[in-house]
Amino acid sequence: MSATLRELAADFDCELYGADTVVTRVSTLAAAGGDAVTFLANPLYKAQLAKTQAAAVILEERYRADCPTACLVSARPYLTYARIAANLHPPAAPVPGVHPTAAIAADVRVPASAHIAAHASVGSGCSFGESVVIGAGSVLGSNVTIGSGTRLAARVTVLDRVRIGARCVLHPGVVIGADGFGFAQDGAAWVKVPQLGSVAIGDDVEIGANTTIDRGTIEDTVIEDGVKLDNLVQIAHNARIGAHTVMAAMSGVAGSTKIGKRCMIGGGVVMIHQLDICDDVMFTFRSVVTRSIDVPGTYSGSLPAEEASQWRRNAARFKNLDALAHRLRAVERTLKNLARSTRNKEEDDD
Amino acid sequence: MSATLRELAADFDCELYGADTVVTRVSTLAAAGGDAVTFLANPLYKAQLAKTQAAAVILEERYRADCPTACLVSARPYLTYARIAANLHPPAAPVPGVHPTAAIAADVRVPASAHIAAHASVGSGCSFGESVVIGAGSVLGSNVTIGSGTRLAARVTVLDRVRIGARCVLHPGVVIGADGFGFAQDGAAWVKVPQLGSVAIGDDVEIGANTTIDRGTIEDTVIEDGVKLDNLVQIAHNARIGAHTVMAAMSGVAGSTKIGKRCMIGGGVVMIHQLDICDDVMFTFRSVVTRSIDVPGTYSGSLPAEEASQWRRNAARFKNLDALAHRLRAVERTLKNLARSTRNKEEDDD
Amino acid sequence: MSATLRELAADFDCELYGADTVVTRVSTLAAAGGDAVTFLANPLYKAQLAKTQAAAVILEERYRADCPTACLVSARPYLTYARIAANLHPPAAPVPGVHPTAAIAADVRVPASAHIAAHASVGSGCSFGESVVIGAGSVLGSNVTIGSGTRLAARVTVLDRVRIGARCVLHPGVVIGADGFGFAQDGAAWVKVPQLGSVAIGDDVEIGANTTIDRGTIEDTVIEDGVKLDNLVQIAHNARIGAHTVMAAMSGVAGSTKIGKRCMIGGGVVMIHQLDICDDVMFTFRSVVTRSIDVPGTYSGSLPAEEASQWRRNAARFKNLDALAHRLRAVERTLKNLARSTRNKEEDDD
Repeated sequence: MSATLRELAADFDCELYGADTVVTRVSTLAAAGGDAVTFLANPLYKAQLAKTQAAAVILEERYRADCPTACLVSARPYLTYARIAANLHPPAAPVPGVHPTAAIAADVRVPASAHIAAHASVGSGCSFGESVVIGAGSVLGSNVTIGSGTRLAARVTVLDRVRIGARCVLHPGVVIGADGFGFAQDGAAWVKVPQLGSVAIGDDVEIGANTTIDRGTIEDTVIEDGVKLDNLVQIAHNARIGAHTVMAAMSGVAGSTKIGKRCMIGGGVVMIHQLDICDDVMFTFRSVVTRSIDVPGTYSGSLPAEEASQWRRNAARFKNLDALAHRLRAVERTLKNLARSTRNKEEDDD
Repeated sequence: MSATLRELAADFDCELYGADTVVTRVSTLAAAGGDAVTFLANPLYKAQLAKTQAAAVILEERYRADCPTACLVSARPYLTYARIAANLHPPAAPVPGVHPTAAIAADVRVPASAHIAAHASVGSGCSFGESVVIGAGSVLGSNVTIGSGTRLAARVTVLDRVRIGARCVLHPGVVIGADGFGFAQDGAAWVKVPQLGSVAIGDDVEIGANTTIDRGTIEDTVIEDGVKLDNLVQIAHNARIGAHTVMAAMSGVAGSTKIGKRCMIGGGVVMIHQLDICDDVMFTFRSVVTRSIDVPGTYSGSLPAEEASQWRRNAARFKNLDALAHRLRAVERTLKNLARSTRNKEEDDD
Repeated sequence: MSATLRELAADFDCELYGADTVVTRVSTLAAAGGDAVTFLANPLYKAQLAKTQAAAVILEERYRADCPTACLVSARPYLTYARIAANLHPPAAPVPGVHPTAAIAADVRVPASAHIAAHASVGSGCSFGESVVIGAGSVLGSNVTIGSGTRLAARVTVLDRVRIGARCVLHPGVVIGADGFGFAQDGAAWVKVPQLGSVAIGDDVEIGANTTIDRGTIEDTVIEDGVKLDNLVQIAHNARIGAHTVMAAMSGVAGSTKIGKRCMIGGGVVMIHQLDICDDVMFTFRSVVTRSIDVPGTYSGSLPAEEASQWRRNAARFKNLDALAHRLRAVERTLKNLARSTRNKEEDDD
């Protein structure tokens, strides 16, 4: 696709300063040429602005004077960039049709607008909205519902009775609806607790590569509208992830924990089971969440790596931290007694 | 399936109190209707007991008086629930047969009771017990052995010479028998150490979605009977997981570490290589295990997340914990000297 | 394969002491019989040397006197072992040919030496070097380039425009080139930032089972020559992993972080975004890396698990570590004042 800067300014609600020209693609500040539009959103990259060869830079008003080329001034340059990038680089429209190697149960009606790729397997009772894409090697169990415009990339697994909304993207290796991890102890052994619920996923959800979302034990595991999950994320049975919450890679939620709306969960964060996390909570990377949270805000829980010998010394002290605190308490007491006796002595002396 | 409460009481060794009726399903305390049986195992949910509409509640004797409906009294209500749920909701029996798109090596004998689904691929020399299920898109290398009643869900990979026992369940995306991570350093570069062992998995093992178990370097990686692994678990080459040990999601075991029987490994726990963990050890979520354990019991190793500014203050102090301990030592010495000199002074004064 | 010890000594640059014989395989010190060669590299296993029944042991000169059988003396026994093992147990050469169930775009030229297995799917514009192996159920998008001798095990996904060098090994479940996790905030909702870059992977790279490497936002994510990634590793968009760096299982790198050459990243290590890690850095298992590193060396960041009640006491103190440090400061001040007043008093007394 191509567009003039003037068209982009009009379509994406920003103001053009400088000469109009035709652009055909987006690029970085450093690599952009005269056919490309770029952006400045992170101040870290401000030094690159002066030397950019881009046709135009999307930026905030405050950076306009520093821009050597045309600019598209926006209050939210990263958001404007996202929209312009999608406009100049629209995703390839799926070619409607069913690949001859796909194995589709006889009772399934495939919309003419849908794309079902090679070696996909679709079970009985599945139902598809318009323009769904079922990528190569994906496997759908029985009675799966997939909303219009949703795209399963290659090798996605969606098991029986899972419901997925519209305009979702599921990346390769995703597994939705495997059994939750539920066992009842019988002496030394474990007896499987049937996992009878399913998974309900809202609209506009994106799920990263090799992420797993288990089905509920009795009721459903729920992923609300607009949730974005990164790669290798684990969502256990009966968890609920509130609308527009984002979870970065390698984070995980144990059984029955409910996360509110608009939360931001950093990479590698884990939450234990049966917690309630309110709306608008941020956990920074690698936090371990062990209690419910009812106050919005930012929570942290990881210690940064240090040079190894320094770390070892501090870690060794941590092993004796309780003893150290007791020693401090003893010192405080001794000192108090000493101060008192000194004071008494002075009074005696007076 | 359906059953009378009287039949359930007789079959699952519990005592019926209240009116007999027919039930057809299990449900939760909150959602159950008059056709459903439910359970009370976690005291957290006790408040819901008073309002339940269930036909009957499986519970301990001590809660019987609080139950507004019929109840099935059991010493172990969760275990009894698991068995009744499996009775009312038996897993769909696999339809025997081989899908025409499955690619099966010519020398493989498939039992008439087995189900091999679409786009499965089975290598030469594989051998199957009765009623095995090979899910859609699963790939078996050569000379894989799978015991009777074992079910590979969709898209499972089992590589050459792996042996899997009877009645196992492998969830989608599981990879068994990929090469262990073994390289020998040659200057800056790494030379691959051939991974010549395989993986031996016992009976009644369940393995969660996208979990990986590597083959051994020379001898086998071993998963003993009754082990349950959750999603996204990593088992490195030559590890051994003892019978009936459970490992929650995102936990991992490095090379050659041996875990005893009946251990419980929390979510996100990692163990370094070449450890020996004795039987009956529990590690709570996110522990880092760096030494062998020969005393059964519970071990912990994670710090819970706190409000961010509070966390930051404490984390900053941790960086200087060794210095802080030295300062405390200095204080103790000064104080001792001071006390001595004060004592001496007093003696002098006397 | 088989070889005499004399041949092995000549071919792999080590010195034979003791009787020559024919060996056909490698084994462990404990299990080896008279047809096997084994090695001693880790001093942990030295006790097993005295009882070995191996035909020969690969070991350092200093252990030669303790070896009851023939030995192959090498300065680097593990490296020599790796090479001899590969010699005696060469990987099965792939049988050239395309399985009839593979779905290959019409414009793709498959070299006669290549092996494309059952249910593989290859998109338009893909290009293959000699002797590539595309395992069963693997999916390649469009315009993927794969260098000669590279082997994709079963069920690997490689998406559009990814370039992979020569002699790489990608284990099952690997996903290369899924969209990076990029969203721009628009009020409560998130707008997808198109992920327009790709992934460039060098030569001699090995990638473990279910590992994910995302495509770049504008430019490419880069994995340099000789990198080795273990299972369940996450590489985010625009990361760069320097040549010969190794990353153990469950480690992860956030967006735009650059890791130098010859680094060693322990299991479960996570690095936040936009860091620069210099060459020759080692992070021990489970470290959290939050700042750039420009000094080669070893860095650590995890606390080892302890017996639970002991851990709980120390963890409770950590929550008040800042307060404890303030208390120590107060003690130091009081003590200083007290010492001064005692000194003054003594001077007064004099």
